[in-house]
Amino acid sequence: MTVALSKPTLTAEQPIGVFDSGVGGLTVAKAVMARLPHERLIYLGDTARVPYGTRSQATVLRYSRNAARFLLRHSVKLVLIACNTASAAALDALNQELPVGVLGAVEPGAAAAVAATQSGVIGVIGTLATVRSGAYERAIRRMRPQPDTRIEAQACPLLVPLVEEGWTAPDDAVSQLVLHRYLTELARRSPAMDTLVLGCTHYPLLRPAIERAVAELWTHPVTLVDSAQAMAEETARRLQDDHVLASANTWSDASPRLTCFVTDEARVSEVGSRFLGQALASVQLVDL
Amino acid sequence: MTVALSKPTLTAEQPIGVFDSGVGGLTVAKAVMARLPHERLIYLGDTARVPYGTRSQATVLRYSRNAARFLLRHSVKLVLIACNTASAAALDALNQELPVGVLGAVEPGAAAAVAATQSGVIGVIGTLATVRSGAYERAIRRMRPQPDTRIEAQACPLLVPLVEEGWTAPDDAVSQLVLHRYLTELARRSPAMDTLVLGCTHYPLLRPAIERAVAELWTHPVTLVDSAQAMAEETARRLQDDHVLASANTWSDASPRLTCFVTDEARVSEVGSRFLGQALASVQLVDL
Repeated sequence: MTVALSKPTLTAEQPIGVFDSGVGGLTVAKAVMARLPHERLIYLGDTARVPYGTRSQATVLRYSRNAARFLLRHSVKLVLIACNTASAAALDALNQELPVGVLGAVEPGAAAAVAATQSGVIGVIGTLATVRSGAYERAIRRMRPQPDTRIEAQACPLLVPLVEEGWTAPDDAVSQLVLHRYLTELARRSPAMDTLVLGCTHYPLLRPAIERAVAELWTHPVTLVDSAQAMAEETARRLQDDHVLASANTWSDASPRLTCFVTDEARVSEVGSRFLGQALASVQLVDL
Repeated sequence: MTVALSKPTLTAEQPIGVFDSGVGGLTVAKAVMARLPHERLIYLGDTARVPYGTRSQATVLRYSRNAARFLLRHSVKLVLIACNTASAAALDALNQELPVGVLGAVEPGAAAAVAATQSGVIGVIGTLATVRSGAYERAIRRMRPQPDTRIEAQACPLLVPLVEEGWTAPDDAVSQLVLHRYLTELARRSPAMDTLVLGCTHYPLLRPAIERAVAELWTHPVTLVDSAQAMAEETARRLQDDHVLASANTWSDASPRLTCFVTDEARVSEVGSRFLGQALASVQLVDL
């Protein structure tokens, strides 16, 4: 006999927690803040142990538990796992273990892609670790079991360092050349692709550059699905369902909309501000 | 009063130990094997914890001690630290603590640059962590205290992922465009530069591409100093001085010239073979 654990009563006054292996997940924080302007966010970037993609599943699960525990100590009402690798390794476990809801990085993007596609041919770009995990394929096939579903995943290892270097403008010769090299490969394999999932926290910064390259390589329109935006939409739905959406009066204007913690400070402000799209006001160093 | 620890008697029959944060240090193993064809090597790549560049000094020192202890258990006669970050963090400590000699990645390259320069203007390219550490500047200034010495370091964060992606050919449009962007900056600041240190284990694979870009950006010849080759030269000198150089008869042909250990297996054979310039025959997984 299983005993249902009693969940604590959640309130609108609690913040939303977001964790990531680094600062890339700030694109998720940005999307949530844009979609839900009355919410407050606690962000944790495990910058001392980034990247997770090269670690074992067991290690990533342990790191994710550390991060979730940290966020719970800050009384969050929902935990967002911005990191694709951590989502694949820890979503199910955290969903069972935590007293609050947990959203992963993969499912919202997969659902948005399934809603957008007409041809059933969906492309996914991400890091080597994300592509190798097959997480998007599994989620998309579960949501769209039709036999005409085809998923083509392309690992794009150079895009993360490109973004961290800041060479993201659509007229940047390096980013266009690199994107064309990766996407030409995808276009050759999947000319009928009509939906492309940006399956990495870093890619929203390359969106205009990716739009340009895609327009040059496919003859028909291709819908770009931004995982960060899809997570923000799903967050709004979940808080609404749980009746814990913050309103204009929930918080005083004086309280910071985003409180950011990292486990190592190197380059955080510089790179982090780029992901957030605004200056990272205060970053606090923590030991998990 | 300090007491000199008695060092064990070394013999030619012992292998040389090499450690690195990942598989990039195989360029050092390759250079040593080319320079000293009768030696046997034990290589340890700490692939589970790569990259070291984003970790604290204390953490890198701890990891380096783990690695050195592992190599000592394999009775090495000399320890080479192929990783720039580990050299900066651990060379002095390991030199004091270990019962065998230790060579870092920085000093041999710095010495070769000082020997090569006429103008006294030396360029250094490396990862962000290596450039920020200032290790090459300090070593070069110590070896060449003349006031006309000028060192210009340029961080090139995209080169490591470029090498790991395998886009290294001198006629590869991406590598040329990326190299031109970094080196144009260096040429503008240092037109009189006559020596350029490749201050990263990954860069020997880009050497032909770097040679091409340098020839296009400087009007006079520029000597490229390959840190891996410089380490191999210094290894030869050190073993000679200690009278423990292996000869043609020291080992049977049947014993493998290189025994390779890693702490995580992901992509090791594929990427590692590229660095070694030949198939990585057997890789053993270890827990430090």
